[in-house]
Amino acid sequence: MDQRVSIITLGVSDLQKAKAFYDGLGWKEVEQTAGEEIIAYDLHAMTLTLYPWDKLAEDAGVSSERAGSSAITLAYNVSSESEVDETITHVKTLGATITKPPQKAFWGGYSACFQDLDGHIWEVACNPFSKLGPKGEFQWLGVNE
Amino acid sequence: MDQRVSIITLGVSDLQKAKAFYDGLGWKEVEQTAGEEIIAYDLHAMTLTLYPWDKLAEDAGVSSERAGSSAITLAYNVSSESEVDETITHVKTLGATITKPPQKAFWGGYSACFQDLDGHIWEVACNPFSKLGPKGEFQWLGVNE
Repeated sequence: MDQRVSIITLGVSDLQKAKAFYDGLGWKEVEQTAGEEIIAYDLHAMTLTLYPWDKLAEDAGVSSERAGSSAITLAYNVSSESEVDETITHVKTLGATITKPPQKAFWGGYSACFQDLDGHIWEVACNPFSKLGPKGEFQWLGVNE
Repeated sequence: MDQRVSIITLGVSDLQKAKAFYDGLGWKEVEQTAGEEIIAYDLHAMTLTLYPWDKLAEDAGVSSERAGSSAITLAYNVSSESEVDETITHVKTLGATITKPPQKAFWGGYSACFQDLDGHIWEVACNPFSKLGPKGEFQWLGVNE
């Protein structure tokens, strides 16, 4: 397997509510036929989709319980501490639960965490050791300049 | 928030075993100080990391139970049906659980699903409607040629 991920799919309990949350971030859905039971947002070289939790489990060949038994977080890196603060203030208005208010992180950055309407965990972080690329691309090695 | 994800972090119960699995896919870890409690793999414009489940929960400000209550799948798209078959045969040798054997999918492609050692669900798919980019980049709209 090459070193890549094509799609991140978040299992959701109410597709329209979940869509309203991600639209509320300023994200633009991929155009598609009305009535489709999946919502797609193209990111850098990959896609994030929202899909009903029970269908996700069925498609994967696992029970709903097993589908919801893994711990994953998604990180969104930004360029400044104030941008972390602003992002958290914004997602709160969309109904996110702030699980960790903005604070200095042990690894030297500044970060906060929230859960979206379905409990998916996001970290919003400013990492002074790893510059983002011109379009916000992130690499661990910090090679983006 | 811009339309992007910087890091996907998979909570794992045994960091070295999890690393052996992902190394076994042919993935190359980002070089780092020995003894660090996080394993990073740079992907396209983002990073996938492995991190102990309990620390992930602590960092996110949630209980381990809540950290492990969301359903997410990661998809890995390939260019041919035989590549789906080969990938599934390979991950099986690494200890993955095949939850859906390779088969025609309702949406017109060909796919299979497996869970890694910690239950994280991967779909391996050939999607004839969305060409991959030269480096395997995926976009829902299929604009990569």
